[in-house]
Amino acid sequence: MSQKANQMWCLSKRPNQNIDASNFSWQETQLPSTLGDGEVLVRTLYLSLDPTNRLWASDMDQYMPPVRLGDVMRGATLGVVEESNNARIPVDSIVSGMWGWQSYFQGGAGGLSLVDPVPDVPLSAYISILGINGMTAFFGLFDVGQAKASDSVVVSAAAGSVGSLVGQMAKIHGCRVVGIAGSDEKCRWLTEELGFDAAINYKLSGWSAQLSASCPDGVDLYFDNVGGEVTDVVIDQMNSHARIAVCGMISRYNEAEPWSGPKNYGMVLMRSLTIRGFLVSDYFKRFSEGMRIVATWLSEGRLQYSVEIVEGLENAPQAIDRLFLGTNTGKLLVRCSPE
Amino acid sequence: MSQKANQMWCLSKRPNQNIDASNFSWQETQLPSTLGDGEVLVRTLYLSLDPTNRLWASDMDQYMPPVRLGDVMRGATLGVVEESNNARIPVDSIVSGMWGWQSYFQGGAGGLSLVDPVPDVPLSAYISILGINGMTAFFGLFDVGQAKASDSVVVSAAAGSVGSLVGQMAKIHGCRVVGIAGSDEKCRWLTEELGFDAAINYKLSGWSAQLSASCPDGVDLYFDNVGGEVTDVVIDQMNSHARIAVCGMISRYNEAEPWSGPKNYGMVLMRSLTIRGFLVSDYFKRFSEGMRIVATWLSEGRLQYSVEIVEGLENAPQAIDRLFLGTNTGKLLVRCSPE
Repeated sequence: MSQKANQMWCLSKRPNQNIDASNFSWQETQLPSTLGDGEVLVRTLYLSLDPTNRLWASDMDQYMPPVRLGDVMRGATLGVVEESNNARIPVDSIVSGMWGWQSYFQGGAGGLSLVDPVPDVPLSAYISILGINGMTAFFGLFDVGQAKASDSVVVSAAAGSVGSLVGQMAKIHGCRVVGIAGSDEKCRWLTEELGFDAAINYKLSGWSAQLSASCPDGVDLYFDNVGGEVTDVVIDQMNSHARIAVCGMISRYNEAEPWSGPKNYGMVLMRSLTIRGFLVSDYFKRFSEGMRIVATWLSEGRLQYSVEIVEGLENAPQAIDRLFLGTNTGKLLVRCSPE
Repeated sequence: MSQKANQMWCLSKRPNQNIDASNFSWQETQLPSTLGDGEVLVRTLYLSLDPTNRLWASDMDQYMPPVRLGDVMRGATLGVVEESNNARIPVDSIVSGMWGWQSYFQGGAGGLSLVDPVPDVPLSAYISILGINGMTAFFGLFDVGQAKASDSVVVSAAAGSVGSLVGQMAKIHGCRVVGIAGSDEKCRWLTEELGFDAAINYKLSGWSAQLSASCPDGVDLYFDNVGGEVTDVVIDQMNSHARIAVCGMISRYNEAEPWSGPKNYGMVLMRSLTIRGFLVSDYFKRFSEGMRIVATWLSEGRLQYSVEIVEGLENAPQAIDRLFLGTNTGKLLVRCSPE
């Protein structure tokens, strides 16, 4: 095999508030010239940029070890196998994994999952709607949130990669769905393109009254991606025995202080609320079940998803802060090399 | 029938911080001299004093309408039927209800439940371990908290009327049980008399380290009666996928401000925690099931309960603040008239 140059972004400095190019350093190394037994060489096609990357770059107590300073930045990835010493994973296979912000992965295949692409489904789907984002939406809504057809469902960060799917899946299930997003343009997309019953721009004053008008029978299920003040407002409007599926707290990720709970936490008692945090990794073993259902909906044209592609691994550090500024719509991916 | 004088405490002023005699006015009225169709006359035997009374006396948004100023103070009660115009409820029946802080109840029987006393079980049990408190502990632990035999269970306000039962029931179930209470004497009672594996006085510095030492494998289930800082400390020590059954937030009831959530609420996400608030009224329909099991444990000598009786309805207002000062042990009852 030919020896490849590997380009990568390493975490050089932990973010203080926002995360941007100043937190990373660009490095180039030569990959080993031979593959060990069972090893593969994978060329990165897509890198996923996700709010949780901000957590991994910090040293706060979190759900997995923080990325160490100097290490390649962690991230979900999709790639094509260029060389293989592993019978399970032949050359030209598509694999997903977490090899991070680098142009190649070379090593053991333990952390790689084989993807079985279907005609007419673009490869980018396997790192968005049929990957982590889709499974987060699916299991968060139906397993964590226990969505029922009669529910009024509210979704925060509703135009995001997870929220936009949650709302559509809830509509398929028969729920009334109200999205909360950060611009009128996003809100229009949710109602006009994705079929949400209503969408509310939380940056406009009076949005709380709008939420109330949009959920005349109160809120039964809240799929929360943001935490903070938006969540306080939704909790005020929750019905007795309502549920919150806590998927993210993006409003907090740039804060150094511990993330305090809702200001109206007493409602947990007064309204017999259930709050359940979850990680998509809790559901890894059930991914095939979720993917089968979501793929069916996708093939039936019942689910739309938006992918925004940033060209070139070199542009990943500038792009990631857009998740926090709210200037992306749908799933944010970096194309690291051509399919 | 003879016309009776009814003595009562009415809510005269909403509590600002503590609740005490200044919030009530003593009144005496004559009951109607005749019973209407289906009506009964009940002499109050026991009045239950509970932390939630403080909520009812306030005008905050809560799980049922606040007591109106001028109305008889609301409270759980047990009494004996002295006159009856209702075939379902003969004279001398024991009934439980919510007729509040008054020496008699006269009226329709819709809100009364017939009690079927068992020999050797004192009547006071039916307004404590076999009443609201016992059922709160039972359904909170097993249904809301989904206690498993392998769980390390932590209970706050562990020497209280609910907490002391939760811990014993969890021991019967096979759990490791650690109580948190507000004095060394209470802690001794929990470990030496009730069989808790450990008990920790949260008023002593360093109690957080003691909790950690008492739960070497982390906390799986937290039965929370208090909220506030104690809860923050417990949450820090919870395992991934641990659960919190939120039964009360007594540390907050005297506060005018909205009750904010845990300072380390981010753990909900980082550890996939489930927080479930509940009201015992959610389980009214299943009371007979719970009472049967708890009565069996009681008759087998596997459950101890402590009842502290204040003599005389006239002393109720002075007694209720003891729940907040923590100077009671076990269930606080007022004996309003002799059995």
